[in-house]
Amino acid sequence: MNYPNGKKGSLTQPSQSRPSGAGNHAFSNRGMTLEEDINETNRFYLDTDKAIIHKKPTPVQIVKVNYPKRSAAVITEAYFKQASTTDYNGVYRSKHIDFEAKETKNKTLFPLANIHNHQVAHMRSVVEHGGICFLLIRFTLYQETYFLPAEKLFQHWDDKLKGGRKSISYDQICQEGHQIPFQYQARIDYLAIIDKLYF
Amino acid sequence: MNYPNGKKGSLTQPSQSRPSGAGNHAFSNRGMTLEEDINETNRFYLDTDKAIIHKKPTPVQIVKVNYPKRSAAVITEAYFKQASTTDYNGVYRSKHIDFEAKETKNKTLFPLANIHNHQVAHMRSVVEHGGICFLLIRFTLYQETYFLPAEKLFQHWDDKLKGGRKSISYDQICQEGHQIPFQYQARIDYLAIIDKLYF
Repeated sequence: MNYPNGKKGSLTQPSQSRPSGAGNHAFSNRGMTLEEDINETNRFYLDTDKAIIHKKPTPVQIVKVNYPKRSAAVITEAYFKQASTTDYNGVYRSKHIDFEAKETKNKTLFPLANIHNHQVAHMRSVVEHGGICFLLIRFTLYQETYFLPAEKLFQHWDDKLKGGRKSISYDQICQEGHQIPFQYQARIDYLAIIDKLYF
Repeated sequence: MNYPNGKKGSLTQPSQSRPSGAGNHAFSNRGMTLEEDINETNRFYLDTDKAIIHKKPTPVQIVKVNYPKRSAAVITEAYFKQASTTDYNGVYRSKHIDFEAKETKNKTLFPLANIHNHQVAHMRSVVEHGGICFLLIRFTLYQETYFLPAEKLFQHWDDKLKGGRKSISYDQICQEGHQIPFQYQARIDYLAIIDKLYF
């Protein structure tokens, strides 16, 4: 895949847009999901020895396993479990890094229903214990990715618990978050935002 | 389960011994595996807000999933993948914590074949980036658990690569490692060792 270096993704860059499920499938092989972008970015960080950050495996409850002769064990019954933490963590500049990544097809807001209560509890604990914690939010229709510090998420979460809005508006995310430009290498270079905000 | 507080496990404490697969199954419900002990310890750390440390889910390659009507998705074909990192990580006193846990039934040595090359590479990276990294090793027959700093492991690993021993002797682990006494709560309180060694 060949993306222009340092180019910002936007609706005027159809080759980078992937409105997944939104009707336009013409470019679906050219765009990547947020997860794919993060995995590539983390791989780049690893290869360049910049940070050690991995996605956690999908939690699975294994029920039945077959052990055929002369071949690998096959799991024949298993179920998806809900994650009790965030999806990504690791270490960067001696700091513990911990984050969750979410895409939304919504144009005007990010629904808080995308995040689970126990994940927010986990993120609060990480922050209290001195880790750097945040959310990466992608508006897929705009192909824009934002870094939202966990502290900002907590404010909206607490508002919701007090009967407030069940979402964060796109405008608020633009104001309170930090847009991460697309790049060829380190496709979404969130460590650059961490350098600015925390060091 | 009711274990004496602060009591060290040994062969003279049969109620704590679990020679898994070694013929004596009489006490198998009373003893716990190292993984169970660590999970309980981490749960205690979480409950008392001491540290945020989790076991990573077992990495599984999912091949087939059925989506029955009105019930949860069932994974019907999946395979175990080799872990590329260590099993446990998290944050404590603002430090990134990263470790692997291994049991051995051997009486005189810990075979280095228990650890994979890419895990050692991961552990080196974590140390270089300022994380605290170590191995928890249990000699199941003695019911003794040791904290071995990753730096000590690296020395033995490098010796092995140069044609040296393919194991660490029990005596070396006693000298270079730190025994973790069994306790009722925080069954294997490895953070106490971290407090001594790193702060």
